[in-house]
Amino acid sequence: MNLSDLSKQPSPWLQESGPASEVVISSRIRLARNLAGYEFKPCLTPSRQQEILETLKSALLSVPSPEPLFFIDIEGVSALERELLAERYLISLPHARGEGPRGVVIAQNENFSAMINEEDHLRMQVFAAGQQLEKCFEQISQVDNHLETKVQFAFHPRYGYLTACPTNLGTGIRVSVMLHLPGLKMTGQTEKFFNAARDCNLAVRGLFGEGSEAVGDFYQLSNQVTLGVTEQEIVQNFSRNIVPKIIEYEQAARQRLFEENPEAVEDKIHRSLAILRSARLISSQEALILLSHVRLGIHTGRIPDIPISKVNELFLHIQPAHLQMQAGRALSPDHRDILRARIIRTALCAN
Amino acid sequence: MNLSDLSKQPSPWLQESGPASEVVISSRIRLARNLAGYEFKPCLTPSRQQEILETLKSALLSVPSPEPLFFIDIEGVSALERELLAERYLISLPHARGEGPRGVVIAQNENFSAMINEEDHLRMQVFAAGQQLEKCFEQISQVDNHLETKVQFAFHPRYGYLTACPTNLGTGIRVSVMLHLPGLKMTGQTEKFFNAARDCNLAVRGLFGEGSEAVGDFYQLSNQVTLGVTEQEIVQNFSRNIVPKIIEYEQAARQRLFEENPEAVEDKIHRSLAILRSARLISSQEALILLSHVRLGIHTGRIPDIPISKVNELFLHIQPAHLQMQAGRALSPDHRDILRARIIRTALCAN
Repeated sequence: MNLSDLSKQPSPWLQESGPASEVVISSRIRLARNLAGYEFKPCLTPSRQQEILETLKSALLSVPSPEPLFFIDIEGVSALERELLAERYLISLPHARGEGPRGVVIAQNENFSAMINEEDHLRMQVFAAGQQLEKCFEQISQVDNHLETKVQFAFHPRYGYLTACPTNLGTGIRVSVMLHLPGLKMTGQTEKFFNAARDCNLAVRGLFGEGSEAVGDFYQLSNQVTLGVTEQEIVQNFSRNIVPKIIEYEQAARQRLFEENPEAVEDKIHRSLAILRSARLISSQEALILLSHVRLGIHTGRIPDIPISKVNELFLHIQPAHLQMQAGRALSPDHRDILRARIIRTALCAN
Repeated sequence: MNLSDLSKQPSPWLQESGPASEVVISSRIRLARNLAGYEFKPCLTPSRQQEILETLKSALLSVPSPEPLFFIDIEGVSALERELLAERYLISLPHARGEGPRGVVIAQNENFSAMINEEDHLRMQVFAAGQQLEKCFEQISQVDNHLETKVQFAFHPRYGYLTACPTNLGTGIRVSVMLHLPGLKMTGQTEKFFNAARDCNLAVRGLFGEGSEAVGDFYQLSNQVTLGVTEQEIVQNFSRNIVPKIIEYEQAARQRLFEENPEAVEDKIHRSLAILRSARLISSQEALILLSHVRLGIHTGRIPDIPISKVNELFLHIQPAHLQMQAGRALSPDHRDILRARIIRTALCAN
């Protein structure tokens, strides 16, 4: 797996158009596991950490997979390459910026990755475009089942899977979707959505996960309860009750917008595309806000000539590490703004 | 002169490209005169006002002119038509919105207009594109000389021409230029320009004259002293000393901008054009700001495919009365924003 090639291409799985993709950009299921007989990460010596790395690496590489699997030794790649992996959601920022023996196993189409020695010994995740949580769950369960034949995970008959942080105890599962909610935003219902999510014990985050702010109407929604329910219950509730409800609200909001003040929405959409196609300098924050409007324009038929995959691709390519990998060198924020604008112009004008 | 046709065409004189038009949009000279033997306007009865109207109308229509001259009875046209005339600088807003017998004589190419019974009995002005103050002065002097053979103006051997407001006493002249100073603005030198103007006893106003704020880097600069100097001295000082200095500063500022941070200026220019070409709703204030950047782009070769006359034309056509005359009916501000955006899109995309 050549990391500098990665920076030039979109994540293959994100190129597909999944169900309900007008509102749900992607689905993700993550499982946290720890090896029995080892301390949790904060108490591990480097040599024990190395043992875990070897054990899990070989177990993971033995998983039957239609896609080739690759191992990347995080200590062996540059800081920029680590950031690149984080921007592609293949590893977390703490994993990129942490210390000690650690690695990641990645499927070639990037829809599967498994971090070794992150907060837990093993954190693995499956992605899919659109709303495909149950498919993700099926896939990750197969991997989990295979791993259970190779290694022994720390498991307590009463509490379930043991994890470094008690918030993951039990199933160790995190179910999440990346949502695009410009309708709720423009009709002033975002606050209502936040409150409803909180009432359902769900966490709302920005595009880049924990601690990140929502930019450009993109929200990551995930479960917070992992104890006292089965994995199936969590996935099904999320997939069959919560997500369809949000899709319904968002679609209703969009319809209302276009009925009540079509010029105002179309103005936003067309201005955003025009700015993206002409700017000579652009920050990633502004680009995300504008891309959000363009995405809305594509899904509502106002922008007929740009495929949605082009927009999804830009989400990745305009990020700092991607820009610098493409440039082949470190770039100041000003130079990133220039290159970002050039990449966006090229991508959106060539259609 | 059909006023509804006016709303569809630019002021003919503004279509020409005058000297130094990168910085000086237009030149204007105005003379204030009052008839001897009549009270000043505030003390006139309607019948005396009517007498003045008849006298000056026939004197003005007898002026030898290469362009046909038309008289418009301001009381006889609709409120919207009066606003239209004001937006074209042919009459002032107080003249449009005032009361009593009053009128205006206009040359067909709109480079000359003479208001009767505005603040003074007669206020006449000559316009030209670019920096052509001396030509304007020559023209208006010919008209003034002709009128002196037909009527007697109130004149005091010591004070000169008597005017309703003492600020116009003496020569009754106002010399002004409409300036486009994006370079001074973007390099943070506007304040310096204001102070220098104040030190030279010059007034700086916005695009729409007295009381209007500067929008989009457009400034009207005019003399304030009319007493104790000759008309020639005022015009020559303005034309040969003041304006060339401002042009020099502005051009130096533009050069610095493009040398020091070309991306930032080009970003502004290209974004502005893109927004104007794509907006579905736009206020006149925003349009002026964006047109200012486009004008800079044209004059610095960054926008090669739009003639400057198109931009000058839009300055007029996007104003409220022009929009409503074009629509053939009164429009709410929201509907004006929609029509304004459509007119701008059409004008700037057809090139």
